[in-house]
Amino acid sequence: MDFNLEQFASDNSSGICPEALEYTIKANQGSAPAYGNDIWTQKATDGFRELFEIDCEIFFVFNGTAANSLSLASLCQSYHSVICHETAHIETDECGAPEFASNGSKLLLAKGPNGKLTPDAIEAIIKKRTDIHYPKPKVISLTQATELGTLYSTNELLAIKSIAKQYNLKIHMDGARFANAVVSINKSPAELTWKSGVDVLCFCGTKNGMAMGEAIIFFNKTLAEDFAYRCKQAGQLASKMRFIAAPWLGLLETGAWLKNARHANQCAEYLENKLLQIEGVEMMFPREANSVFVKLPEHAIAQLRAKNWQFYTFIGVGGVRFMCSWNTTQARMDELIGDIQEAIGRI
Amino acid sequence: MDFNLEQFASDNSSGICPEALEYTIKANQGSAPAYGNDIWTQKATDGFRELFEIDCEIFFVFNGTAANSLSLASLCQSYHSVICHETAHIETDECGAPEFASNGSKLLLAKGPNGKLTPDAIEAIIKKRTDIHYPKPKVISLTQATELGTLYSTNELLAIKSIAKQYNLKIHMDGARFANAVVSINKSPAELTWKSGVDVLCFCGTKNGMAMGEAIIFFNKTLAEDFAYRCKQAGQLASKMRFIAAPWLGLLETGAWLKNARHANQCAEYLENKLLQIEGVEMMFPREANSVFVKLPEHAIAQLRAKNWQFYTFIGVGGVRFMCSWNTTQARMDELIGDIQEAIGRI
Amino acid sequence: MDFNLEQFASDNSSGICPEALEYTIKANQGSAPAYGNDIWTQKATDGFRELFEIDCEIFFVFNGTAANSLSLASLCQSYHSVICHETAHIETDECGAPEFASNGSKLLLAKGPNGKLTPDAIEAIIKKRTDIHYPKPKVISLTQATELGTLYSTNELLAIKSIAKQYNLKIHMDGARFANAVVSINKSPAELTWKSGVDVLCFCGTKNGMAMGEAIIFFNKTLAEDFAYRCKQAGQLASKMRFIAAPWLGLLETGAWLKNARHANQCAEYLENKLLQIEGVEMMFPREANSVFVKLPEHAIAQLRAKNWQFYTFIGVGGVRFMCSWNTTQARMDELIGDIQEAIGRI
Amino acid sequence: MDFNLEQFASDNSSGICPEALEYTIKANQGSAPAYGNDIWTQKATDGFRELFEIDCEIFFVFNGTAANSLSLASLCQSYHSVICHETAHIETDECGAPEFASNGSKLLLAKGPNGKLTPDAIEAIIKKRTDIHYPKPKVISLTQATELGTLYSTNELLAIKSIAKQYNLKIHMDGARFANAVVSINKSPAELTWKSGVDVLCFCGTKNGMAMGEAIIFFNKTLAEDFAYRCKQAGQLASKMRFIAAPWLGLLETGAWLKNARHANQCAEYLENKLLQIEGVEMMFPREANSVFVKLPEHAIAQLRAKNWQFYTFIGVGGVRFMCSWNTTQARMDELIGDIQEAIGRI
Repeated sequence: MDFNLEQFASDNSSGICPEALEYTIKANQGSAPAYGNDIWTQKATDGFRELFEIDCEIFFVFNGTAANSLSLASLCQSYHSVICHETAHIETDECGAPEFASNGSKLLLAKGPNGKLTPDAIEAIIKKRTDIHYPKPKVISLTQATELGTLYSTNELLAIKSIAKQYNLKIHMDGARFANAVVSINKSPAELTWKSGVDVLCFCGTKNGMAMGEAIIFFNKTLAEDFAYRCKQAGQLASKMRFIAAPWLGLLETGAWLKNARHANQCAEYLENKLLQIEGVEMMFPREANSVFVKLPEHAIAQLRAKNWQFYTFIGVGGVRFMCSWNTTQARMDELIGDIQEAIGRI
Repeated sequence: MDFNLEQFASDNSSGICPEALEYTIKANQGSAPAYGNDIWTQKATDGFRELFEIDCEIFFVFNGTAANSLSLASLCQSYHSVICHETAHIETDECGAPEFASNGSKLLLAKGPNGKLTPDAIEAIIKKRTDIHYPKPKVISLTQATELGTLYSTNELLAIKSIAKQYNLKIHMDGARFANAVVSINKSPAELTWKSGVDVLCFCGTKNGMAMGEAIIFFNKTLAEDFAYRCKQAGQLASKMRFIAAPWLGLLETGAWLKNARHANQCAEYLENKLLQIEGVEMMFPREANSVFVKLPEHAIAQLRAKNWQFYTFIGVGGVRFMCSWNTTQARMDELIGDIQEAIGRI
Repeated sequence: MDFNLEQFASDNSSGICPEALEYTIKANQGSAPAYGNDIWTQKATDGFRELFEIDCEIFFVFNGTAANSLSLASLCQSYHSVICHETAHIETDECGAPEFASNGSKLLLAKGPNGKLTPDAIEAIIKKRTDIHYPKPKVISLTQATELGTLYSTNELLAIKSIAKQYNLKIHMDGARFANAVVSINKSPAELTWKSGVDVLCFCGTKNGMAMGEAIIFFNKTLAEDFAYRCKQAGQLASKMRFIAAPWLGLLETGAWLKNARHANQCAEYLENKLLQIEGVEMMFPREANSVFVKLPEHAIAQLRAKNWQFYTFIGVGGVRFMCSWNTTQARMDELIGDIQEAIGRI
Repeated sequence: MDFNLEQFASDNSSGICPEALEYTIKANQGSAPAYGNDIWTQKATDGFRELFEIDCEIFFVFNGTAANSLSLASLCQSYHSVICHETAHIETDECGAPEFASNGSKLLLAKGPNGKLTPDAIEAIIKKRTDIHYPKPKVISLTQATELGTLYSTNELLAIKSIAKQYNLKIHMDGARFANAVVSINKSPAELTWKSGVDVLCFCGTKNGMAMGEAIIFFNKTLAEDFAYRCKQAGQLASKMRFIAAPWLGLLETGAWLKNARHANQCAEYLENKLLQIEGVEMMFPREANSVFVKLPEHAIAQLRAKNWQFYTFIGVGGVRFMCSWNTTQARMDELIGDIQEAIGRI
C-alpha cells in the first residue's frame, strides 16, 4: 500500500504546505522567548486582527479538539449546555472532550437539513426544558463548513444570531474548514464571523496546511478574560510557541491559507463534476466546500477499499466521503474516478 | 534587545535542532494516515522500546504539562493524592493542570534537600493522614533531573521504589530533562526507569531539541489501558502525528538526544567552573545536569537584567538560574561570565 | 391551593412515613460517633446484607442524583460511556450530574419499547463506534422500575447480563423505585439484582418514605474500593449519618419498605382500573408499578390543572403521569377520578 | 463503651435539638411540592433575609463539604485559586472536595497566628506569583469561628475586605460554627458578613442542632446566578427540601440557633476555667467559641482514651481539642475534668 500518494480520507492526511514549512524554518533562528512572548506570536496575532478587521484576542492551541472544547468551556459552566447539530464533530468525534473540558456541560443535539442548525431547531431545544433538572442552554455551536461539507450563508448566520440574542446565548464556530468556507462563500472573514454574531471562532491551521496548531479567536474580548490560564492548565500552552505562530504567519502573509483552501475546494468541485457524469452516482449533500459525499453501491465501495483507496464511510448517514486538500492532485482524482467507474460497472 | 542570541532563561527558548528538523522534512512526503497510524509513529515507538529494552506502551502528546497531568491522572482517582517535592514543576508551574486533568487529585508536598524526595519524607506524608477526610496517596512523582538541577542516583530511586512497593504507590517520573540525567548519571535509560521502579516516564522532546512533543512511556502496560482515549478526550491526540513522531525518531536514530543533552550539560559544567572562579559567587545546589544555580548580589542581578540577559530568579529559593541547552555557545557563556564579573566588581 | 392533600405529582411529594420517623427519633438519643461509625449505620448496612443475601458494600448518600452519578463514576473513566435508555432519569432529569461526577463520561442513548433497554439496542450502540474518537462503553444503566412505570423481568435482566458479559460492561441499576419493582415482580431482591448481573444498585429511600437518603449497594465488592473517599469528596458523607441509617433500618426491620411500596402499587392499580372504565382514556404504557400513564384530551388536562391537581406531563411522550405513593388515599383517588370524568365529559 | 453519653469529639456527634425535631414533625403533614417549592423553604429563606437584614439568595444543601466546595466553585474557575489558612477545613478535611467541585482550583495556604488569615499573609500570596504558570487568586476563604476555635473581629474582617477589594477577590466564609461566632462576638449577623465584605456565607445547621443541612447565603446576588443548577448537578438538591428548610425555620423562629450556640460556648468557657485550675494544663489558643484546645501530657491523653473519652488530637498542632455542643452537660464536663485531674496526677 502506497499511502504516500495523496488520499481522500481527510485533509489531515496531508503534510505541511511549503509556506508553513518555510516560516517554520525562518523562525528557527537562535533562541526566542517561550510561551508566546516572541516576535512571531506577536506578528501572527496582529495578522489575525488585520484579517478580521477587529481588535480581537487570539490564542494558539495544538489541535482542534482542544480549540473547540476549551473555547466552549469558556462560554458556559458545567451545568449549562451547548446546542449543536447531531452531526457536529464536537458530538461525534471528540470522545467527550467538551464534556471533559467543561466538567460536564451537556451537548443538546438538533436535527437540521444538510448538517445545519436552523433557528427553529435551536428554539425548539431552548423551549423544550426550562426547569432546573436539565442543563440550561448557553451556547450555540456552528460548524463552518459543516461536517457534511455544506455552508451557512451570512443570512442563515444572521437568523441564528437573532435567536442567540433573544435567548442570551453565545455563538461558537468550529472553523475546522473555515478557510474553505471563506473561499466558497466569497464573504470576508469578518462578515462570516463577528459581523454575523460569532463570539469565538476556532480557526483550524492543521487542515489548511500546517503540521499542527489552531487559533482561537475571541471577537468578544471580555469572554477571553484569563483564557490564557485556561490554556495553560489544560496543557495547551506551547513553550516554543513560535513554531505554531510562525507557520500561521506564513499562511496569512503569503495568502497560502486562501490558496490552499481554494485548491481543495476546486478539487472537490472537479471530483463532483466527474462523479455526476457516472451513471448511478448520486450526491448526498450539496457540494459547497472541499468534501464530496456520494452514494455508491456497496460492491463499488468494497472494490475501492480493495484497491487501497482511503476514505470515510460517514457515520449514520451512509455513503462515502471524499475529502480534498491543499495537496490533492488531478492525477489522483482521475485515478479515483477511473476506479469508481470501473467498480460501478462491474456489478 | 537581541533575543535571537542564545539565552540562559530556559532550554525551551532554543529552537529545533538540525536532526529533528531533518526528520520533520523527511516525514513531509505526500500523505500519511492520521492519528498515529503512520509509519513514523510506528518506528518512533519501536525506537523507544529498543532504547528502554522493554515492551512498553508509548503515547505522544504536545507538551510537558499534558504529559505529566494525563499520566498522573491515569495513576489515581480524584480522591487520591500525589506525593511530590515542594519545588516540583507539577506543583509550582502547571497552573493546576494535574488537579484539572484528574478532576481534583491533591498534590501533597514534601520537603527534601536539593529538590529531591527522600523515602522518609514520603513515608511521613503517607502516615500523616489515613482517614477518609484526606485524599489517599497513590502516586509518587519524581523529577529527573530535578527542578534544582540535581539528580536521583539509582540507589536513591531504588530506596523510593521500596517505599512505593510497601505502601502500594505508583511512581511517575517527570522527565523534562531526562536526557540530561541519562548523560550525567551514566546509567542506561532502563536502569533509570523501570528497573528502578518507575511505572511511567514523561520523556521531554521539546527541551531536547524538538519544536514540541513529549513521549509518555508506560513500562507497566496494564496502566496504559485505554490511555489513548484519555489523550484524545484531553485534546492531546495529534492528527498529523508524524510531525511529533518523526523528529523523535530523528533524535533517537541519530543519537542527537544524547548529543544535545551532553552538550547542554557540558556547557553548564563550563559555566559552573568559570563562575566558581569569581569571588563572591556561590553555588546554590550541586550542579549535576544542564542548569547552574548561583547566588549573586542583588546589584549584579540588576546589572545583568539591564544588559538584557535572560534568566530565572528561582521562586522561593533566591539566586539565579542559568539554563544551558543544545544550542548554547561558549562565546555567549564567556560574554555572560564577563558581564557577571564586571557586575560583581561594580559594587 | 391545598397542597397538603395527597398529590399525584411524584412520590417525593410525600412526607416521612411513620416507621422512618420513629427510628429517627429512636436514634436521636445522646451523642453518636460521626461519619457512619455509629451503631445505626452498622445495623442498617447489616440489614441490607441480609436482605440481599450477600456480603455486599453499602454506602449512604443524600439523594438519588448523587447515588446514580457517583456510582456510575466509579464504574468508568471520563473517556468511557454509559449506555442508557433515552428516557432514563440520568439523561433527562439530572442536569448533567453523571457527566459532572465522572468529569465527562457521555451517556449513549438507546431506544426501546416501554422505557426499557433491550440486548439488541445495547449491542447496536456498542458496535456503532469502536474507534478512539468516541467514548468506549463501559456501563449499562437500567432503571427498575423504569421512568415509564414498567418493569424488567428477571429474564430480561439475564439477557442484558449476557450482553454485558460478552462486551465486558458493568451493570448499574437506578432503583429510584426498586421497592415497587420487588413488590410487583415477586422476586427476591437478590434475584432482581446480583443474581441477574447487577453490579451496583442505587436503592432509593426518599421515595419509599424517608426524609432523604439513598443506599448505594455494591454487590461486586472490588468495585467499591475507596468509594467512601469518593462520597466524602463529592459532599455526600453525612456527619450525622445515623439520621440516614436509622430510618433505613426502620424501613427494613418493620417491613415498611415493602408495605409502602405495595400500597403505592395497589393505588396505581386501583387508579388504572378506574381510569380504564372512563371512555376515551387510554393507557400509554403497561401499568406495572406505582405510576399510571394515560392519554387525556388537552381540555381535560387543562381542567385538572385548574383544579390544582398536581401531575407531570411526560416530556417527549405526551400524556399525563399520575404517581402513587405510600400516603396516597383512596379518597383522593376517587376525587381525582371524578374530576377526570367530569373534565372529559365537558368537551 | 457508652457513646450515647455526650462527648467532646465534635459537635456533629450530637443529635437533633428539640426545636429542629419539632419543626421536622410539623412539616411532615401531607404532601408538599418537591425541590424547594414548598412553604417551609419559602419561610426559611425569608427568615434568613430578615436575620441578615438584606435581600440575599439562599440555597440549602446537605452538608458542609458541599456548601463550601460548591460556593467556592461559583466564585472562581478551575485555573483560579483560593487563599485560605493552612489549617482551614477546606484544606485539611474535605478530601479534595473544593478541587473536585471546581475541577481543579488550587488552595493557596497562608500561615497566621491562631488559625487566622491576616491581610499581610494574603497579600504576600497574591504577590508571590503573577505569571500564567500559577493559578490566579480569586477568592479568600475565612472560617468563622476558625478551626482553632478563635474568632475574626469585625476590624480584622474589614482589613481583609480592604485587601480583597484592592485585588478584586471575593470573600467566602466557612460558617461551620458561625452561630457560635455571632454569640461570642456580639455583633449582628449582618455586621459579621456582608457589612464586613463577605460575599457568600456557608451557614452550618448540622453542628447547630439539625440532623443535616446547610444554608449557602449569597449576599452578592449576581454571584448566585444559576447556582440552583449547580446544586442540582452536584447532587445537592433535596427533593423533600422541606425537611431541611423546616428545622432551619425552627432554629431561626425559636431562637434555638442562638440558644444552642450560647450553651456550647458557655460549656467551653466552663471547661476552660476548670482546666486552667489544673496545674500543668496550658491553653493552646485563645478560647473564643465552643472549642477548647489544651496541651496535655502524653500519658494523660492515653489515660483519657483508655476511659473512652472521645476527642481529637489536632493535626500538626499537638494537644487536644474538646468540642462542646448544644447537648453538652455540666455533669459530663465535671466527669471529664475529674478524669483529667486524675490522669495528670498519675504520672
